[in-house]
This record gives sequence, structure tokens and C-alpha cells, in this order.
Amino acid sequence: MHVNILLFEGLTQLDMTGPYEVLANAPGFTVDFVSKSLDPVRCDRGLKFLPTQTLASATQCDLLVVPGGPGTDDAIVDADWVAFTRQQGLAAQYLFGICTGSLLLGAAGLLRGKRASSHWRARELLSRFGAIPTDERLCVDGNTYTAGGVTSGIDMGLKVVAALCGDDVAKLIQLQIEYDPKPPFPGGTPATSEPAIVERYLAMSQARFDRRAALVDRAAATMP
Amino acid sequence: MHVNILLFEGLTQLDMTGPYEVLANAPGFTVDFVSKSLDPVRCDRGLKFLPTQTLASATQCDLLVVPGGPGTDDAIVDADWVAFTRQQGLAAQYLFGICTGSLLLGAAGLLRGKRASSHWRARELLSRFGAIPTDERLCVDGNTYTAGGVTSGIDMGLKVVAALCGDDVAKLIQLQIEYDPKPPFPGGTPATSEPAIVERYLAMSQARFDRRAALVDRAAATMP
Repeated sequence: MHVNILLFEGLTQLDMTGPYEVLANAPGFTVDFVSKSLDPVRCDRGLKFLPTQTLASATQCDLLVVPGGPGTDDAIVDADWVAFTRQQGLAAQYLFGICTGSLLLGAAGLLRGKRASSHWRARELLSRFGAIPTDERLCVDGNTYTAGGVTSGIDMGLKVVAALCGDDVAKLIQLQIEYDPKPPFPGGTPATSEPAIVERYLAMSQARFDRRAALVDRAAATMP
Repeated sequence: MHVNILLFEGLTQLDMTGPYEVLANAPGFTVDFVSKSLDPVRCDRGLKFLPTQTLASATQCDLLVVPGGPGTDDAIVDADWVAFTRQQGLAAQYLFGICTGSLLLGAAGLLRGKRASSHWRARELLSRFGAIPTDERLCVDGNTYTAGGVTSGIDMGLKVVAALCGDDVAKLIQLQIEYDPKPPFPGGTPATSEPAIVERYLAMSQARFDRRAALVDRAAATMP
């Protein structure tokens, strides 16, 4: 099972590093990190990663993994990223979008008529790509796995491994990464966080949402 | 608040990338990734990261973050890593060990008489450094935060941010990273995973445990 993880500037690194830890622990999985060049790629918070393949050199994967983050907003209007995602996505056995990574799957025309999830703040935008947005943390529609924001990629990574390798392999990895989470606070979704926290977050993220929505409209207009 | 995250070959990247996502979202936090040189550092599963400082160039941090992984076993018997960890750790306001990262804090003589946690498979070894092992996922003793295996670093990152910036900042970050975890299986600790899974994991990890225990003994013999 060969995995290509897309690595574009400005990605939210935990979208990718969470599920990577799970997938890379599965027996028989090989992973490439694909970018426009082999230059280091900077995540939205500064940490830099080294890609292993370019858009030109990458081989066809069995599982395509698309992380999200501010960088996804630019990737959805970038013809190279959209074309690569479409080409790989059409031939891959499985698609896996985490957080706003599902917007790039959408922009590549891969979510038409499918149920899909995304970061809670961006989910509604999926409909502009012909997808059916759900507020599930873990949404599975056929061969397409889409997770909610950031940390949901870990939960979904385990679900993907369970589907591909069996439950026991996923359970072993869960024990290896000691994944019996104990968040110090209740919350983490608009339904479970305190209303005052949700209101602050909505206000803080409004400008980014507006920019993202405009880019989604541009991407939807040229969706293949 | 300046954070130094130790980046040694063979670290388990999610030990570090999980809490990094939380800490880097906290207002006023700056983060350096410190390694022996500025060459890329390879994690145990292959992904390569770029450090931002060397042991020689790093400034004193307020918060020292030590991830774990197979690479920690070598770092605890490496005089340069031990000396750097001790020097930074003695002057830092806060220490934060994730997974087997607490073994390096121990090897640097920073856990004597303190309660501390680690990956469940390695916890007992902490006593050889004069620490008091606990089976808590999140262990706080004074200024020293030690978390259990891998993913517990996310939970503990939120606890660290709450202590340093207040609960509301941590709750906002929890909502940003949509951390309302829903593992697809119960489990993730020896107490919650199915006994057959725990037995398989114990058998699989015996050789690594034996190697680690021998290295811990070597490190304990020269603990500063």
C-alpha cells in the first residue's frame, strides 16, 4: 500500500503528522511526501519538512492523503496542485482528506455527490464543490475518508488502517501511540466548547473564512 | 515564552508535532527546533525535519520540550545531548517530557525525587534515574510536565498552555484543532486495550525494551 501525502506551503502540520504516525506504523505501508520541488516546505507555524518526491516524480499511490491548513486555500486555486490531486485521486484506491484538505479533493472534482467533512469552520463550503457536507468528525463515503479539523486525522487514520489491514492492526497501533485521549477540558467542537469560546473563535477566524470562501468560489468555477 | 524542542535522529515525530501544534498556537510563544547541526533530522518512520538551531547556537529557553522514540535511547548515552538537556533544563522555567522523552530528562539528572510518566512500556525505567514512576497519562510535579506515550503530548500541551496562558487560551486552541477525540476503538493503554492486543504488543516490543533498559543502566551510571 503506497501512500502519497501532499506537502504544500502553509499546511497545518498536525493534519498530516497525526495520520502519518498511524499509517507509517502499518505493516507494508510506504509513504512519500509530495511537493512542487524537493525544497523544504514550511508549515503555517514555521516548522519545515523535506519532501521525498515532486509532482513530476511521484508514482501513483494507492492512498492519497490531503492535509489542510491556510495553505490549502491557495492550493485549491493552483492549477498544478488541482491537476495532480485529480490525476492521483482518480486512480487511487482510497482518498483521505483531513481538515480543510477535503476542499482540495473538492476542487479536484473528486467529491461530487459524496458526503464529506472538513474543519467545522469550513464544512459548509464543501457544497460549492457539489459535495454533501456533514458535521461528522469521521465521514466515510465509499472509498473516500474525510475527517474534521486537525486532530480528527488521528482518529480517521486508525479507521483507514482498520479498513485496509484489519481491526487488530489498528488496535496495536492505538496501543503503541497510547491513544486513550484525555483532553484536559471538555470541548473541541462548536457543540461541546463553551459558547463564549466558540463566539471568540468565530470572530477571530472571520477574515480567514471570508478569504477562504472567495477562493473556494474561484476554485469551484474551474472545477474539472 | 521561548520554547526549545529537541530534535534528535530517530525521534517519534508525533511526540513532538502534537504538542508543537498546541504550543505554536499560543500567543507570544516562539519555538526553536534544536539539533546537533542544521542538517535535516530523520524521525523513526522516515520523515525529515529541518532544525532551526544547533546545540551551540540555541538560546536559553523558558520551556524545554523533549520528545521520545527509539532515538531517545541513543540520546540518553550521548554526552552532548545529556549536557545540553541538563544545562537548558536547570535554567528553564518549565520542563516537558513526552513519551520516552522523560528518560532524557532523567538521564540529565532532572527528575530526581520527582513523580514522572513516560510511554507505558518504559515507565518503570524512570526509577533508575531516581524518579518516582506513575502510570498517569498526564503527570505534573512542580514545573515538570511528563506525559505518557505519543498522543498524550497533545493532552499535555493543552495543560501546559493552560498553566502558562490561562484556561481560555487552551480552550480556544482545543476548538481550533477540533480536539474532541473519538478513537474508533476502545483501548490505547494496557488497562483499556484487549488483553490479546496487549500481549502481542509486549512480545513485539520485548527486544526494544531490553535494549532500552541496558542503555538506561549505562546512562544512570553517569547521571550528573
